[in-house]
Amino acid sequence: MAAYVNMDVLRFQLFQTHDMEQILALPHFADYDAEAVNLMLEAVKDFADQQLYPVFREMDEQPVHFQDGKIITHPSLGPILRQVAEMGLIGGSFPYEHGGMQMPFTLGTATYFILDAANNNVMGYAGLTAGAAELIMEFGDENLRSTYMPKMLTAEWGGTMCLTEPQAGSSLSDITTTAYPQADGTYKIKGQKIFISGGDHQHAENFVHLVLARIEGAPAGTKGISLFVVPKFRPTDGGLVPNDVITAGDFQKMGQRGYATTHLVFGENEGCTGFLVGQEHRGLNYMFLMMNGARIGVGRGAIAIACAAYHASLQYAQERPQGRRIQNDGHKDINQQQSLIIEHADVRRMLFLQKAIYEGGLSIVLQSSFYQDMVLHGPAEDREKYELLLELLMPITKSFPSDKGREAVDTGLQVLGGYGFCTDFVLQQYYRDIRISAIYEGTTGIQSIDLLGRKLSLQNGRALTLLVEEMQATIAAANVYPELKPYTKKLAQHMQQTQEVLAFLQPFAKRGEYERFLSDATIFLEFFSTLVIAWQWLKMGVAAKTCSLTGAGNFKEDFLESTLHTMRFYFTYELPRMNGLAEILHNEEELTLLKEKDLVL
Amino acid sequence: MAAYVNMDVLRFQLFQTHDMEQILALPHFADYDAEAVNLMLEAVKDFADQQLYPVFREMDEQPVHFQDGKIITHPSLGPILRQVAEMGLIGGSFPYEHGGMQMPFTLGTATYFILDAANNNVMGYAGLTAGAAELIMEFGDENLRSTYMPKMLTAEWGGTMCLTEPQAGSSLSDITTTAYPQADGTYKIKGQKIFISGGDHQHAENFVHLVLARIEGAPAGTKGISLFVVPKFRPTDGGLVPNDVITAGDFQKMGQRGYATTHLVFGENEGCTGFLVGQEHRGLNYMFLMMNGARIGVGRGAIAIACAAYHASLQYAQERPQGRRIQNDGHKDINQQQSLIIEHADVRRMLFLQKAIYEGGLSIVLQSSFYQDMVLHGPAEDREKYELLLELLMPITKSFPSDKGREAVDTGLQVLGGYGFCTDFVLQQYYRDIRISAIYEGTTGIQSIDLLGRKLSLQNGRALTLLVEEMQATIAAANVYPELKPYTKKLAQHMQQTQEVLAFLQPFAKRGEYERFLSDATIFLEFFSTLVIAWQWLKMGVAAKTCSLTGAGNFKEDFLESTLHTMRFYFTYELPRMNGLAEILHNEEELTLLKEKDLVL
Repeated sequence: MAAYVNMDVLRFQLFQTHDMEQILALPHFADYDAEAVNLMLEAVKDFADQQLYPVFREMDEQPVHFQDGKIITHPSLGPILRQVAEMGLIGGSFPYEHGGMQMPFTLGTATYFILDAANNNVMGYAGLTAGAAELIMEFGDENLRSTYMPKMLTAEWGGTMCLTEPQAGSSLSDITTTAYPQADGTYKIKGQKIFISGGDHQHAENFVHLVLARIEGAPAGTKGISLFVVPKFRPTDGGLVPNDVITAGDFQKMGQRGYATTHLVFGENEGCTGFLVGQEHRGLNYMFLMMNGARIGVGRGAIAIACAAYHASLQYAQERPQGRRIQNDGHKDINQQQSLIIEHADVRRMLFLQKAIYEGGLSIVLQSSFYQDMVLHGPAEDREKYELLLELLMPITKSFPSDKGREAVDTGLQVLGGYGFCTDFVLQQYYRDIRISAIYEGTTGIQSIDLLGRKLSLQNGRALTLLVEEMQATIAAANVYPELKPYTKKLAQHMQQTQEVLAFLQPFAKRGEYERFLSDATIFLEFFSTLVIAWQWLKMGVAAKTCSLTGAGNFKEDFLESTLHTMRFYFTYELPRMNGLAEILHNEEELTLLKEKDLVL
Repeated sequence: MAAYVNMDVLRFQLFQTHDMEQILALPHFADYDAEAVNLMLEAVKDFADQQLYPVFREMDEQPVHFQDGKIITHPSLGPILRQVAEMGLIGGSFPYEHGGMQMPFTLGTATYFILDAANNNVMGYAGLTAGAAELIMEFGDENLRSTYMPKMLTAEWGGTMCLTEPQAGSSLSDITTTAYPQADGTYKIKGQKIFISGGDHQHAENFVHLVLARIEGAPAGTKGISLFVVPKFRPTDGGLVPNDVITAGDFQKMGQRGYATTHLVFGENEGCTGFLVGQEHRGLNYMFLMMNGARIGVGRGAIAIACAAYHASLQYAQERPQGRRIQNDGHKDINQQQSLIIEHADVRRMLFLQKAIYEGGLSIVLQSSFYQDMVLHGPAEDREKYELLLELLMPITKSFPSDKGREAVDTGLQVLGGYGFCTDFVLQQYYRDIRISAIYEGTTGIQSIDLLGRKLSLQNGRALTLLVEEMQATIAAANVYPELKPYTKKLAQHMQQTQEVLAFLQPFAKRGEYERFLSDATIFLEFFSTLVIAWQWLKMGVAAKTCSLTGAGNFKEDFLESTLHTMRFYFTYELPRMNGLAEILHNEEELTLLKEKDLVL
């Protein structure tokens, strides 16, 4: 079987780059130690090898489709989800008393990363079911919990998040799905939701939709949105009863064609009952408490695709002979045997770019997962700090894997030349699949406004101060190693550059020119992400040097040297791009703002 | 019908930016004037509207396939190609005595651009048939010409270029297809060719393959390659006779699924006759004389896709309400009506990026087409100059539309959010289609080595000197307009920066470190292309100012102002990226060269 993931990279990042031991030492995770973590990762890898990877191409070639009012998915989806559940990977982070395994979130991320790399069509179903169950666990009453959660955690029932509506898109303040209060405390639900991932399929006997809707007469905007459990079938003493939730279709997509994206109609025949979760009008708050997990999940899924694509490109480059290396006179000796293409500098550049992006992206996903664990279960006095760090890094954790991961996959396709474009090879599938990541759970444009418009100014910029402290701690650790000093210097220079850019931009907000302040937010996100990933690479560099000295983790020298080399590559080929971006951000023009007299575009 | 091209942009670029009148004034084109050109463009646009655009989606949804040994393409392909031929657009630039219309190459580019924008599955068939006919016309004897050309120009017979072989890929020195001399002066051909575009389909009664092969006993490498006409059916007095050319399959591709990509087997039953074109061992030289035209064609096709994608994104953004503009307090008023998304700054940024790339890319394609006309039919004393300029710009003309065009289409998909990923909308088709452009006719990596390793040192750098003179002429013309002066200054600064980068890189070649010299060639291509397109944008800026003053071309002020605004956008949002790239190129490390002890990638 082709490689799609490198378990050494995952182990190195979890235990040497990020302090997994610190998480395992928390009382909440008393039942876990490093050995348990490694055993679980190996078990998940075996499962992925045996069940997920083998059907990855097929799920694309025999895509989800809508037939006779039903969504038909690949036949192996059901057995796979059941086994995911048996391994405890649906709601694995839930506490024992709610049927979970009380796993660290970080370990959950690592397991799903492996499974996503094997087959990115599958874990969305599991992740959304877990997310829906988590909303019920956190905000639902005991009745909702006991009615719905057990069947969700076994994957007998699926779960979804129903936010988007046709007329509203990303603008949740405009949703119109309505909940009409009934005498018995339930609600009649009426409305349509689109782009509902995993919203229906033949392998679950029921679906539990977590639906954002507006109670009749609620205030306008996001403040009038409530959250409801709306099952496809209502559980009653007499069994499951249809609940007037109609599957109207499956959106046919360019990629992730094994993952259903449904159109649901609630209450077309006035027979759809919903159950309020928590309090009225608090729905969006509840949903957004889950959003960090969902966004880490999108970043994880995207970087898993980039990881799998890297391994496919690498394998091709190691096996494909073509052309010859250029000699020092600028010519090639045609009497020589052909070189493997991995010997050509430009192919090596492309492979290092893929590796630098995917490992850098994985690292930020694990960094945020680490913060998430510390927020939820770390020492009380540190939680606010970690929460601010998590919030600040969230837009980058979601968008760097999505956007740069896409570049990595695109580069990987190029490594294969014409074959990369052909359906006989897998690269084109990764190229199609990863494209959705920059759209899921808030587009890159929305992430960028979140970063520049909200996160950087949290508590008067305290989140940024904390991040700078984290970076400085990494710089201090790196400065122990003379070999790393040139890189600490570069990172510090670009931190300074970032402060200068912010000093230029922030006055726009203070002057009330808010639209101008945010007009280049997407460029700023790219700029800031480049810095943050350089920090992650320096962290990995420190870890590699430390492992080399101490033998920690028993990594081979080749592995550690390759990690250091990729760090150098990132600092040499990616970090300098900040210079161009800084100049763009310093522009004095307002070329993208709508003026009174609009330009004919 | 949805818009896919803007005829004003094309007219503006042809007549105001590039001096189409100068071409029309050449004696060879005595029968053409501006009116004739405009009439032809309008006729082509009508044809594209009526015949090509309506089947664009269908050709993707019902892709080319291989069935019972035959390649089946969309039923409308035959009638369309016949009409293309009737309009004189196969070999339109050929002289009258060879059945052509003696059209300017630039006009040919403009017509194919419209047709490609309407449906990029079609014109490859016509272009390759014309290219094959051109090789016969230029290098074949009278017998080959009279036997093959007439049926090719009517599209009754198709034509192809057969270069690639499975074991050789881009490395043509390794091709093994062999030609065995026969007593009658013909050759028996034996070998396999892959990725042969338009190599077979049900709408042509014969195919004329221009095949690179090695005459038995020929020298190794590219110097031993000859060119042959190898028909699928040999024309004889008794009609067409099978020539042992077997279609072994059709490569299934991610995009351009209406365009056949065949696998051909020659002489499996020892019955394949080939006819030498020109002299022995000169095959690659002949083929490469056609290569500039082919590479301009790839650039044209790519930028036509980017153009069509821009119009699709623009239309969506003009019609789709979502969210509201941010007010100066940083909030949104939910009681306001939703805004059209084109009012949001980030959406405007994305649309301007698409427009800046597609119009900049179209301009470089037309610039090279202009040089091509001047090389072939301009005053004898200027031909060398134009040839050098053409050669220097060729890698950029092919790769900028392919690489930045891909970014433009990717950006355009993002404008549509989730809908962009769904097959109900066309953006995902453009996203898949354009991906091949960076691979066709020499990958971006090969283009970059061509630029840095060959073209910049042509005649001791004279090509570059000539390009600098052209840029300086544009700067001088721009400096007439005070409004353009900030941009001439920026362009000049980046020209200086380019000289500095070259002064750093070129000593590697002089010191015999040729592999190092070329190791970052792809980064250099991106860097240099960014400069060259800025020059094209300044040219468009000058033209817009001039039209505004003089009324030339009767363009509306809105159109001219939009052009100027997009120029400002390019200089503000794209040109500064050179700063980051320059720093990358100045790196002192050798991170991508294969060392004796190889890294574990």
